[in-house]
This record gives sequence, C-alpha cells and structure tokens, in this order.
Amino acid sequence: MNSVTETPVAARIAECDIRRTGLLPEHVTAFRRQGVLAVRGLLTPQELADVQEAGRTLIDRAWSARSMDDTVWTLEPDQPDAAPVRIEYVVDKSRQIAMLAGHPLLLQIMEQLVGPNLIPTWDSMVFKTPAGAPRLPWHRDAGLYDHAVGITGMGRVIDAGIYLDPAPEDNCVWCIPESNYWDDERVTATADRLNATEWDTTGAIPAVMQPGDLLLHNILTLHGAPAVVGKQRRVIYFEYRPAEVEWQLGPHTEDYIGLKQQALRSCVRMRAEDPRFAGEEPFDYRPAETLRRWAGRPDVDTLRFAHEDHWRW
Amino acid sequence: MNSVTETPVAARIAECDIRRTGLLPEHVTAFRRQGVLAVRGLLTPQELADVQEAGRTLIDRAWSARSMDDTVWTLEPDQPDAAPVRIEYVVDKSRQIAMLAGHPLLLQIMEQLVGPNLIPTWDSMVFKTPAGAPRLPWHRDAGLYDHAVGITGMGRVIDAGIYLDPAPEDNCVWCIPESNYWDDERVTATADRLNATEWDTTGAIPAVMQPGDLLLHNILTLHGAPAVVGKQRRVIYFEYRPAEVEWQLGPHTEDYIGLKQQALRSCVRMRAEDPRFAGEEPFDYRPAETLRRWAGRPDVDTLRFAHEDHWRW
Repeated sequence: MNSVTETPVAARIAECDIRRTGLLPEHVTAFRRQGVLAVRGLLTPQELADVQEAGRTLIDRAWSARSMDDTVWTLEPDQPDAAPVRIEYVVDKSRQIAMLAGHPLLLQIMEQLVGPNLIPTWDSMVFKTPAGAPRLPWHRDAGLYDHAVGITGMGRVIDAGIYLDPAPEDNCVWCIPESNYWDDERVTATADRLNATEWDTTGAIPAVMQPGDLLLHNILTLHGAPAVVGKQRRVIYFEYRPAEVEWQLGPHTEDYIGLKQQALRSCVRMRAEDPRFAGEEPFDYRPAETLRRWAGRPDVDTLRFAHEDHWRW
Repeated sequence: MNSVTETPVAARIAECDIRRTGLLPEHVTAFRRQGVLAVRGLLTPQELADVQEAGRTLIDRAWSARSMDDTVWTLEPDQPDAAPVRIEYVVDKSRQIAMLAGHPLLLQIMEQLVGPNLIPTWDSMVFKTPAGAPRLPWHRDAGLYDHAVGITGMGRVIDAGIYLDPAPEDNCVWCIPESNYWDDERVTATADRLNATEWDTTGAIPAVMQPGDLLLHNILTLHGAPAVVGKQRRVIYFEYRPAEVEWQLGPHTEDYIGLKQQALRSCVRMRAEDPRFAGEEPFDYRPAETLRRWAGRPDVDTLRFAHEDHWRW
C-alpha cells in the first residue's frame, strides 16, 4: 500500500465565508488542489432579490417565446413536455445580470485565481424549472486545451456559478475533488463508469449551495448533477480565462479579447453608475499593458459576442 | 494616442514586507502583472548569518578546487584572472542551504504562486567575488515552453533569489516589468537592442536588495545585471515549477517529479529536526493525490539530481 491510497481526498467541499474572512491563502490552495470552492454569501439580500427577479423574467420570456434562439430545451420547444433549461448571453439580456457581472468582490476573487488579465468568456443561466430537467452527465467543461492539466490543472479557467435558489444534496452539482489533475484516460474511464447508471456519485462530493452563494469550479474538474422534477434551481454562470491563454491558445480568436474586455468594462461602469451600488468601490480592471486590447476600439453597442463568430478551432 | 501608451508601467519594483503583512492579494497581483516582486526580510539575522557562512565555505572550496565540476568560471579556471561566478546543486553541497530550501515561509509563498504541486527544479548560488564578474546580458531564463506566455506568463515558473549581500543600484538585477507577457519577437528585439551596448537599462527598474531579502522573478521576465568588480554579491537561487506542468510539458522527464519531491521533503525534515528551528511550524507539503510521486520510491541518498540525467527535450 503506498501513500497515494493512504491519502484521503477531501470528504467535503472547501468553503470560504467571503464577507467574514475574504479569500484567504488556504482557500486559494484548496481551490487549486480540489478544483472546486464554495464561496458563501457573495450577494447581499437586495442584490439576490434583484437578480432572482431578472432570472424569473428571462425564464418567463423563454416559456412565451418557445424558441431555440440562445435557449436550450429538454425537447424541441413545440413538444408539449418540453422545458427550457439554459439561456445563453444573459449579460446582454438583462441589465441586472450585467451589473452582477461587474460585482467587485466576484471580480477580485477571479483576479486572484485567474490573474490580472482575466476576461469573461461564457455567460449563461442554467436552470431547472418545476417542469424538470434531466441529469447532467459527468463531464469536464468545453473549450479544453492539449496538455490541459499542465495548462490549467491548477485552475486558471474557471466557471463561477451564482446560485439564485437552494441546491440541496438531491438537487445540486457533485464534483470529484482533484480530478482536475487527472489525465484524459482516467477522466474518460471514470465518466463512462459513472454515467453507465442513472446517478452514481462514487468518489464525488456534493456542492450544497444557498441562494446568493458562489460555486467556483475548474473546468477540468469532473462534475454532474442528478435529474430533478418539481423544484426550481437557477444558476448564473460566468466563465473566466486569462487573456494570455486566449491570445496564445484560444479557443477564441484574438479580437475576442478586446471585445470581452469592453464588455467587462461596460458591466463595471453600469454598476458604478447605479445608485443601488453607490457605496461600493468599483472593481479596478488592470491587465498588463500588452493585454489591454480595448484601446482604440469603437464603443460596443452589445454585450453579446457569439462564440461561433470568434472561434479559432 | 491610445491608452496602451498612456498607461505607465510600474516605475519601481513591487514590495512585500513579509513578516509584517504576509503575502497579500495585492502582492500576488503585482507579481503576476509585473513578473517580479521583492519580498523583504525573509531570513532572520541568525539564519542569514548561517547561510552567509555556508556561502563563504562553498566559494572558498571553489577557489581551492579550481575545477569546473558544478562550477561556472569567468575564464578557464587555470587562467590567472579566472573567477568563479556560479555553483550548481548547492542544496546537496551544504546542509545549511538544504535547510534553507525547507524554509516554511518561502515555501508558503511559492505554494501561493506556483500552486500546491510546486516542485523545486534548479538550485544554485550565483555570485560576484571581489575579483569581479561580467555583465549578465538581458535574457529570459532557460527551460521555456512553446506558447510560453499562455502557459506561464502569469508566473507559475518562478526563480526565487535569496540575497546574502546588499545589491545596490550599480550591482543589482534590473527587470523590465510586464515583459513576462511579451511575445518572442518583442523580447528578442528588446534584448538585442539593450545588449548592443555594455549596459542599457531603458524601460527597466532596479531590484535593490538587502541581505536576507527574497527576489521573485517569473522566468519570462526580461532581466540583466551590470558588470562589477571589487564587490561581493551572493544569491541563492531556487527555481520552482508546478508538477503538472513538468509532467505534461517538461523540461524534465516524469521520474524527476518524484525525485525532487523526495528532495523537498528531505529538506523540510532536516529543518524540522534542527534545534535552531524548533519553534517553527514546518511547511506542510500537500500536492494533489495524483501528483504525489514520491510514494513507494526507495529513500534518496543525494539531493543532487542532474538535469542532464532527466532531460526530455
């Protein structure tokens, strides 16, 4: 027996009570090691209520439109049992969510983990309406690199999920700690084994969340969620990547960096100009000089930059 | 005029008074942005005196041996004007320096920057005896990767220099802040231009250091130093890399990871067992389970693992 098998991998998710302690070195190390971190109490009750209202509006609109424009459904939307489960580009669709994307504490956390050149990439709302949603099979997220573990095993490409509803054990994301360092073979074998039955959590830990909490996961961390019916659960997801990685390795083209920096700066400005956030110090976005790609660009009149228009691969 | 040229790059080196504040988020961000950070007062006066004594012994031995074994000289060592300027594998050559490599505060800083899977790679003492040493031309360090800026522009491969003597402006390392994010073309053009004359510091800032201080530099940061005669300046250099990068991208072979983890653990243990460090909490080395490569290996009887015996490229 060697010390690999003697070493217990974390039995529960690492947590940070952000307004009490801030992001401490031990939180950073736990996230880098395990590939997942629960940040408690990111949103104030007022901001949570405002974002919940924004989420409700977007879901109501999806039900009325019954369209696949920027919306993922469980079945073709004209089928009677179809339900929407995901809406893309929510920062462009809701002023409230755009202001959320400018949240200074959120962005400070991301700056510590992604580095000073962080840019926002994907933004979406993933949700289960009471009409239900199928399981999310065990997977790593998309947009991976060759030698992905070497490049981002420690967690520089991060999905930040902001919870608008409770996520108890039977309706939450489960993660396999430290799977962010596994090679492709082990990831594939494990995902295949766990996905062979309807819901298998062997080796995984639950990410139990409360409304207003933030769940960070490394895109390389294996995660999944059980099928649910009869419960609402809405999560706003923002993905972040370092501009220097996007620049040299993609997955988007180089011009995407400047556009998304403009979007981020717009979100920070919208929040700074809103009286509700008057007492707040805005996030100070200061990437390295050579990666300030917004300079000299015309103003943007949208916050929606479609991935397929800026795809490198 | 665009905002790139309007944005002033740092005029002086970022500093951290480590025993007063610890490594704060602003120090981490400054290091990631600029590619360099001065950490003041890492060593206690007693440890500094002990390491100075160890450095003196190694240099005296180099002068007596007049050999090129693990030693770099300004000229062939049998030439009358030859002087030694660098000794490799100093952790293996000095118990005092091995214990320095187990310094808990040093290793905590490196864990924050390199991640929980840090491994030590190069270790050496670089010095100028009063006999003098030529300039160190402007350069990036060795062991670079394809797409180096994407992989380590933010600073995951780091040289940690511990100063045993003062380094004033006319005898210190100079760095170009943020050059860690430059592409190869800009690096080459700048280094060629600066190296065309004997000593040109255009765009650079001095890293003025005191004995016992620690200078961190990203291996991608352009740096150099002027020629000096008549002054002693000794620096112990430890380089660190993330094991996941070494594993997937080199430059050493995979077996090197476990060997250097054994070396690190030996250094931590030697320090913990020495009465001089009795009051100290030892560094808790906890890489991710899949990267604990020391398990099941025979004990090592050396701390010297020659790069050329474990070279991938």
